[in-house]
Amino acid sequence: MKKLEKITPQNVDFAKWYTDVIKNGDLMAYGSTKGSIIFKPLSFGIWDNIRFELDKKFKAKGVQNVYLPLLIPESLLQKEKDHLQGFNPELATVTEVGGKKLSEKYFIRPTSETLFGEFFKNEVESYNDLPLIYNQWVNVLRWEKTTNPFLRTREFLWQEGHTVHNNKEEAVQLTWDMLEIYRDFLKEYLALPVLCGQKTEHEKFSGADFTLTVEAMMKDGKALQGGTSHYLGQNFTKAFDISFKNKNNETEFAYGTSWGVSTRLLGALIMTHGDDRGIIIPPKIAPTQVDVIELFANKEEKVAQQAKLISDALLNANIRAKIDNSDKNPGFKAANSEIHGTPLRIEIGPKDVQENQVILVRRDTLEKNIVKINDMKEFIDVVLNKLNSIQNDLYNAALDRLNHNFVEVSSYDEFKEAIASGKWVLAPFEGSNEDEDVIKNETGASTRCIPFKLPIEIKNDTCFYTKKKTKRIVAFAKAY
Amino acid sequence: MKKLEKITPQNVDFAKWYTDVIKNGDLMAYGSTKGSIIFKPLSFGIWDNIRFELDKKFKAKGVQNVYLPLLIPESLLQKEKDHLQGFNPELATVTEVGGKKLSEKYFIRPTSETLFGEFFKNEVESYNDLPLIYNQWVNVLRWEKTTNPFLRTREFLWQEGHTVHNNKEEAVQLTWDMLEIYRDFLKEYLALPVLCGQKTEHEKFSGADFTLTVEAMMKDGKALQGGTSHYLGQNFTKAFDISFKNKNNETEFAYGTSWGVSTRLLGALIMTHGDDRGIIIPPKIAPTQVDVIELFANKEEKVAQQAKLISDALLNANIRAKIDNSDKNPGFKAANSEIHGTPLRIEIGPKDVQENQVILVRRDTLEKNIVKINDMKEFIDVVLNKLNSIQNDLYNAALDRLNHNFVEVSSYDEFKEAIASGKWVLAPFEGSNEDEDVIKNETGASTRCIPFKLPIEIKNDTCFYTKKKTKRIVAFAKAY
Repeated sequence: MKKLEKITPQNVDFAKWYTDVIKNGDLMAYGSTKGSIIFKPLSFGIWDNIRFELDKKFKAKGVQNVYLPLLIPESLLQKEKDHLQGFNPELATVTEVGGKKLSEKYFIRPTSETLFGEFFKNEVESYNDLPLIYNQWVNVLRWEKTTNPFLRTREFLWQEGHTVHNNKEEAVQLTWDMLEIYRDFLKEYLALPVLCGQKTEHEKFSGADFTLTVEAMMKDGKALQGGTSHYLGQNFTKAFDISFKNKNNETEFAYGTSWGVSTRLLGALIMTHGDDRGIIIPPKIAPTQVDVIELFANKEEKVAQQAKLISDALLNANIRAKIDNSDKNPGFKAANSEIHGTPLRIEIGPKDVQENQVILVRRDTLEKNIVKINDMKEFIDVVLNKLNSIQNDLYNAALDRLNHNFVEVSSYDEFKEAIASGKWVLAPFEGSNEDEDVIKNETGASTRCIPFKLPIEIKNDTCFYTKKKTKRIVAFAKAY
Repeated sequence: MKKLEKITPQNVDFAKWYTDVIKNGDLMAYGSTKGSIIFKPLSFGIWDNIRFELDKKFKAKGVQNVYLPLLIPESLLQKEKDHLQGFNPELATVTEVGGKKLSEKYFIRPTSETLFGEFFKNEVESYNDLPLIYNQWVNVLRWEKTTNPFLRTREFLWQEGHTVHNNKEEAVQLTWDMLEIYRDFLKEYLALPVLCGQKTEHEKFSGADFTLTVEAMMKDGKALQGGTSHYLGQNFTKAFDISFKNKNNETEFAYGTSWGVSTRLLGALIMTHGDDRGIIIPPKIAPTQVDVIELFANKEEKVAQQAKLISDALLNANIRAKIDNSDKNPGFKAANSEIHGTPLRIEIGPKDVQENQVILVRRDTLEKNIVKINDMKEFIDVVLNKLNSIQNDLYNAALDRLNHNFVEVSSYDEFKEAIASGKWVLAPFEGSNEDEDVIKNETGASTRCIPFKLPIEIKNDTCFYTKKKTKRIVAFAKAY
């Protein structure tokens, strides 16, 4: 049994706090391959729940899951030169099998655009064959130089959706639909409020006509891109010759989209909700929603009986409950539940059994309530209400932080000051790609998006950087 | 829209039949990496259902899902030399990234025993930390020379369970429990009857003390190993130094198990239930359980309305239904449903709407029933009963074939004859590993298992091969 280590407070060193809480919370372990991590049951359980719930939303939109090979032959990736260039320095390359050199190299997929490209080419002949709305939940590899658990790892898990359509309107609509799914899912399940918008030309996916994004805000003020949805136009379909005969029997290139979220979401979850005691997992996505903790059960058997009775009732009501009947002391058990981020814990001691009551403790507020168990159905409702409140309060607290962290600036000096203090800047901006590079180099901030809805009223109509008139309002922030 | 191609009859060329039906049934496509396949929505949908249902059974036994890295550093795999030797010729090896040679080679996992070994070593200190009952659903690579879709592909999907325990009894029990889960799952969901038994020393997993197996029988009489569960004793825990302090504060090596099933199960499903019209998917695992087919809907709108009404009622009753409202002719639609193996189809034409009826057609027997729709609840019950019957009948037909395919032999000549005619041999056998090799070379048959229950009465007590007295009854068959 590992000992719990001291957690560095968030306001002392946020980065250190992050690694402390994921270690203490048993979320991951380092593997023997540098830059890769082991997803332990708690973090994989969250990812499994994300997969399950998001997949339901996808399927309601007609998405079908498929599985394409891990390896991309060199010749295939070379068909889309820009794409290859973009990923080249990060490509893990298989050159031999059983000690013997292969005649062609294979890349481990950093993403599967090219594989889908070739697959679609063979599947599509007529407008009747379209749309193909496919998705896969897979591992991908990018040999990153600097890594950070969940946020940037050489191997990560994600879903990548790839679609082709026989008309532009449908493809564009699907690009928007997927962003909406991400926004709703992040809100509903992960309790993550986001700023939705379109990426600038500089920040969009290189193969896309446009890229939509949901940007979340961490407790240190930094942004984290939660998911992106790309309208690819005919860029990939031309490169891969994905064409169809339309109703007039003319040959036309198909219209594509791609969209994805990854295990980075676990990092977003931790850095949005966690506090100095550890992580906090929103109830709707938590593998364990309620810890049922037996206090001094070794001294009185009735405690174990009562814990079992309550746990069974919770499980029957589809609440994910787990009993802690170890022989550890009450303080350890409470800390253990907190550090693993279980949203609610129920403590039952010998006195509570006598009084026919339990103690409910919320992980987020640490608020304690003594609750009588007169009617089990009533008690279950109390628990469900608590879980609901926790879910909503986590979201609202995060939304409040997000909404109060925007600031408008009218000069580059004001911009620098705002970014240095951890704010997100919202301001008129019409600078070039090169301007974005300079700003990023000098301040660490990048354009996050051109928001669809402005969270604050913008007064200026002059670019803070070039001083030219513009109506384009852009959000800037430092980002993970 | 691809044209349906002619299917070679099973009794003409079973191997050709197999590739014909998976092609026509839209189960897979060949990818650009030789020996790898693309899982199209139908086959991946079946695998997704297998994952979902099997995972529920695992979790009820305390299994927790994790995710370990794809790549194994060469130094780690060398810790278990036998293991490395066994897989070496099949190891896809990453030697460079972005064109630059790496200082150490990495192997793409052919299985993850070594990664779990190192992980467990770091997790386990005291008897209190045990058991760890972990599983992962992942892709693995083995660079096979000859491949066959689903049955033997260079990349495949599987679940691999790995556990460590603080005592032998618990580990042995878990090895048996997992075999039971596989047997029950194969029966209940895939309608696959199996012969359960223990592998001989020759056929067991090289790192195991013993290997348990479930062996299914294909329609051509060949065996297919459906799943295995290995008791590893202290073999891997000694190699990886996974030790714990027991209650007497003595250091002891942990006791391990591992167990798995793979996407080979899709091959088993196809070759057990399919017929000359195509594949047949058992209802409990079918992504689409009922095709609702509109006949001449373009001529009468009421047909589409009625189809929608029925499909909605089916979906509400948690029956996975799909409407075919394409403008194809009735014959094509029926053949299309059959070729994709949908267990039940409902045909609705203009006359049926008038008569307030539909036609139900079973995929397995092709039996047609006209069913009146007086009460929707009653109708749903009819559909549920049909689906149940299909599930049971598929299982019973397969069980009947299995049970009638065993034969006892008393000499090697009889053995050769039985194997050549596609039978499974059950007979006393006490031959050596070398004897098993000779028999396999000469007849193509290998030992499948030492069955726990004998499906036929065995009369002899002399080894058919060595002529020595023995009570060990062994099953032999040609296998995929």
